[in-house]
Amino acid sequence: DILERPEGLELGGDLREVTIMMSDIRGFTTLSETLAPAQVVKMLNRYLGAMTDIIMAHQGTIDEFLGDAILAVFGAPLQREDDADRAVRCALAMQAAMADINAANLADGLPQVETGIALNTGSVIAGNIGSERRSKYGFVGHPMNVTSRIEDHCAGGEILLSDSTLQKLDGRYRVADRRSLQVKGINQAVVVHRLLEVES
Amino acid sequence: DILERPEGLELGGDLREVTIMMSDIRGFTTLSETLAPAQVVKMLNRYLGAMTDIIMAHQGTIDEFLGDAILAVFGAPLQREDDADRAVRCALAMQAAMADINAANLADGLPQVETGIALNTGSVIAGNIGSERRSKYGFVGHPMNVTSRIEDHCAGGEILLSDSTLQKLDGRYRVADRRSLQVKGINQAVVVHRLLEVES
Repeated sequence: DILERPEGLELGGDLREVTIMMSDIRGFTTLSETLAPAQVVKMLNRYLGAMTDIIMAHQGTIDEFLGDAILAVFGAPLQREDDADRAVRCALAMQAAMADINAANLADGLPQVETGIALNTGSVIAGNIGSERRSKYGFVGHPMNVTSRIEDHCAGGEILLSDSTLQKLDGRYRVADRRSLQVKGINQAVVVHRLLEVES
Repeated sequence: DILERPEGLELGGDLREVTIMMSDIRGFTTLSETLAPAQVVKMLNRYLGAMTDIIMAHQGTIDEFLGDAILAVFGAPLQREDDADRAVRCALAMQAAMADINAANLADGLPQVETGIALNTGSVIAGNIGSERRSKYGFVGHPMNVTSRIEDHCAGGEILLSDSTLQKLDGRYRVADRRSLQVKGINQAVVVHRLLEVES
């Protein structure tokens, strides 16, 4: 499986334009303190399981789970013409899936949750990162950090995309709430938009 | 190997007191933009390889590599009396190893790098996080986020430890520069100290 063992493609590391996705459940850490550990893990795994299926169905590469956060990229190890569009459709499908997740949570007496999703497009170094004892296909570059900063600004239920992602889209989407964010280590403000829906 | 396949221990998730370590190379993302991708990966993997060996030698559990950042915990899946002390000794060994890493970088015409290391102790939920298709032994809780925030305040060559870690130490260490940090989602300020050296 090329996604699992991309060594042949990426041994030394190379520069790739990718669309990066970062998502997390708003307030999950605080919420987790009100529940039994087994409930937290059950709720988290229900959410991550559903999101993983959706990301894989959209040919995204999951880089990490970090607690309730998911970091994924579209465009590495395999680049496709529609990487940014697939990332946007994936984000929409993830938000649409929250209703079922919350219905299942309700049935189990678990709280309702909302996720925020950030999308950003840029050039990153992709390669096998780590050591002989432990390595992973991973990514380095300011666009990764920028995505994390955009994610900090996402409200529950929102999809925020950077201008760099918006410019890559072939599909027609409606956006609103143009905002400029300051990001540490980046001189220019990062312009983001809130995704409304796909135009029919 | 219990560290690689801890399902038997942690299936449902449980609350653990752990000492969390987060480290990263100061300014690495900016530095990476001045180098060829293959050089970035070479430099990163030299660093991560050395750090992985040291963390494993101190019986730490590596949770993640995220670019140049390393997230590790001491105290899960197996809890030991000296988890906090081992984490501190590990951090000292990691800083001590930087001289050799930089000598090797110099020999290859690569830049000198400095790492910052944050340590924090607290109760987190540990368990197998993810889905049937992809899961990992991971951690959820405010102490994880707090560690990341402490790491943001580390200068190159520094080890910052929270008061909660300091209080767990059996060994005698010299600390300085007591600081109070405000952390999002945490009402109380987080008190941190800079580790100087082990008292002989």
